[in-house]
Amino acid sequence: MRLRKKPWVKDEIFQYTSYSVKEPREWKGKWRTLFGNDYPIHVEFGTGRGNFITTLAKQNPEINYIALEQKQEVLVQAVRKAVALELKNIRFILGNANFVLDFFSDDEIARIYLNFVDPWPKNRHAKRRLTHQNYLNMYQQILQKNGSIHLKTDNEILFEFSLNELSLHPFYQLHDISLNLYRNEENLEKHVQTEYELKFLEQGKPIYRLEATLI
Amino acid sequence: MRLRKKPWVKDEIFQYTSYSVKEPREWKGKWRTLFGNDYPIHVEFGTGRGNFITTLAKQNPEINYIALEQKQEVLVQAVRKAVALELKNIRFILGNANFVLDFFSDDEIARIYLNFVDPWPKNRHAKRRLTHQNYLNMYQQILQKNGSIHLKTDNEILFEFSLNELSLHPFYQLHDISLNLYRNEENLEKHVQTEYELKFLEQGKPIYRLEATLI
Repeated sequence: MRLRKKPWVKDEIFQYTSYSVKEPREWKGKWRTLFGNDYPIHVEFGTGRGNFITTLAKQNPEINYIALEQKQEVLVQAVRKAVALELKNIRFILGNANFVLDFFSDDEIARIYLNFVDPWPKNRHAKRRLTHQNYLNMYQQILQKNGSIHLKTDNEILFEFSLNELSLHPFYQLHDISLNLYRNEENLEKHVQTEYELKFLEQGKPIYRLEATLI
Repeated sequence: MRLRKKPWVKDEIFQYTSYSVKEPREWKGKWRTLFGNDYPIHVEFGTGRGNFITTLAKQNPEINYIALEQKQEVLVQAVRKAVALELKNIRFILGNANFVLDFFSDDEIARIYLNFVDPWPKNRHAKRRLTHQNYLNMYQQILQKNGSIHLKTDNEILFEFSLNELSLHPFYQLHDISLNLYRNEENLEKHVQTEYELKFLEQGKPIYRLEATLI
């Protein structure tokens, strides 16, 4: 669904000054200062409507969350969720993973979530996939040792590509690979679902998942 | 399909003395002598009716093939194919991967094929899967450095398990992972199919494939 651009949306996002970060480049290397504590920082690229990340933020008050989303009409919905839940441990950036090295400094991040990111299914667009070696190299910089990437997708091509890219990368250790996350029904409780994911689940589509740890 | 035991089948297998190896333990460490050359040796565990391995043997006269199959009623069909093709570079063993260290010595093997092996889908049988760490450790012994495992299966659970076991093993490098080998139709020509595989292809079932190299 293409959303109609509404000029007031950006204003609404930045009106929530305790939640949205207007100049994320200024906080590079200083996110701990912004949060006011030393809790580990987990980042989600492509947060969408925010169900996943706000649920996690509520469950884990001792983890700080930074949620990036490039579509303002979508991001505003995630911000509203955080406001409604009165969360203290989450910030939002209107932006995307291309600027990861502008936003975060070396070893600043403990975990990266990639949930249902754009699969760019055509081969000639492979470089745009967020698990391309170029991105994995950037994540390697901002991730702490033993930091990890957690990826979920419904897209077979993106998942296959991600497995290969992560296998070939010398500094990531793949583990907890699942070709059908909810084959085991216990995982419905154990994992938090995104809005997309709930829709796919209703349709009976398999969800792929993997973790990769920086070694 | 359970095949009725026919007593003459074993006799037929061992009557083809240029193809079947009655006492494989005696050739441990000496397979090059048996083949009479120094070509690399590729082994298939669970050869079935032999279409895959005999086709490869015909295509690659400078590779030696050893095909293991534990069901004599199945193995005899593979042996007959090799006889009909007058292949010089293939031998058959009535046996299975449990005896791999009895049959082969260190660094004797360049490649292991695991095609549509028993998936043992119940968790409590995971140790029996031919990609369990215990088997990977045995393969590690007999494989040369840069030797590899090539696995194909139609079974999601076995493939997921294999990805995880190989990822976690410190001496294997996963690569060329495919979640749907024939999504790319060129692969129909590039890869040789087993009898099982042709049946699954007709049914439109996806075929999973991976390679892992000993590093």
